Amino acid sequence: MSETNCLFCGIVAGSIPATRVAETERAIAFMDINPATAGHLLVIPRAHSTDLREAGAEDLTAATLLAQSLVSRVIERLDADGANLLSCIGEAAWQSVFHTHLHVIPRYDDDPLQLPWHPTPGDMDQVQATAAKLV
Amino acid sequence: MSETNCLFCGIVAGSIPATRVAETERAIAFMDINPATAGHLLVIPRAHSTDLREAGAEDLTAATLLAQSLVSRVIERLDADGANLLSCIGEAAWQSVFHTHLHVIPRYDDDPLQLPWHPTPGDMDQVQATAAKLV
Ligand SMILES: [Zn+2]
Ligand SMILES: [Zn+2]
Ligand SMILES: [Zn+2]
Ligand SMILES: [Zn+2]
Repeated sequence: MSETNCLFCGIVAGSIPATRVAETERAIAFMDINPATAGHLLVIPRAHSTDLREAGAEDLTAATLLAQSLVSRVIERLDADGANLLSCIGEAAWQSVFHTHLHVIPRYDDDPLQLPWHPTPGDMDQVQATAAKLV
Repeated sequence: MSETNCLFCGIVAGSIPATRVAETERAIAFMDINPATAGHLLVIPRAHSTDLREAGAEDLTAATLLAQSLVSRVIERLDADGANLLSCIGEAAWQSVFHTHLHVIPRYDDDPLQLPWHPTPGDMDQVQATAAKLV
């Protein structure tokens, strides 16, 4: 299932580091290191697929249900006011990593988020501190 | 399951008109009348829930799998170059109708989409013509 040179397959395999906050049999969730807002997470099926169109039904379901639980978790534990669930299918839709993923983006009243956001590295101490609230 | 005064429950019940393009036992898909791009669809569980956090697992799964099939369909039939799947949980996340829904937003190379978009009524002739390609 894993694809050579796929960043997210590397995270699934553990050969590329990531700060995981949740996992299930078919899906994992970890911190986005270029967070659009504080607590930005990525949820991916463990099995490789290029984008959501190609994900198997069980894998997509597992990722969606894990994302659902994390939406509640970020709102409760990070005191967020809402969240967006976003998937990007194709470069025209801002996809940049070609392994199916769902973004869980916590939202805060009057935050300035616009999409597309301009990915810039987050403060890793802050990302780790936020992750600690989510595990 | 239906809630008085819920626009999308009205669409499920058929008491409020909408241009449906697909339906399954637990979910329906219809045209967004304020399209962010040509072919913008909404996919909803038939059962009422305020937002994705509260949707039952089977309902959310059904909506997600229907959305997945429509992502492929807009790319094939509308000659779109990609698509975004988006759900907004809470006003802070741009939610405006409080019945769980997934946006399927077709994307076209170099389209100018930014989120949040500013909902304005679409040309209904064009919306209907697009819907005809999707059913
Ligand atoms: Zn992969
Ligand atoms: Zn992404
Ligand atoms: Zn409703
Ligand atoms: Zn909406």
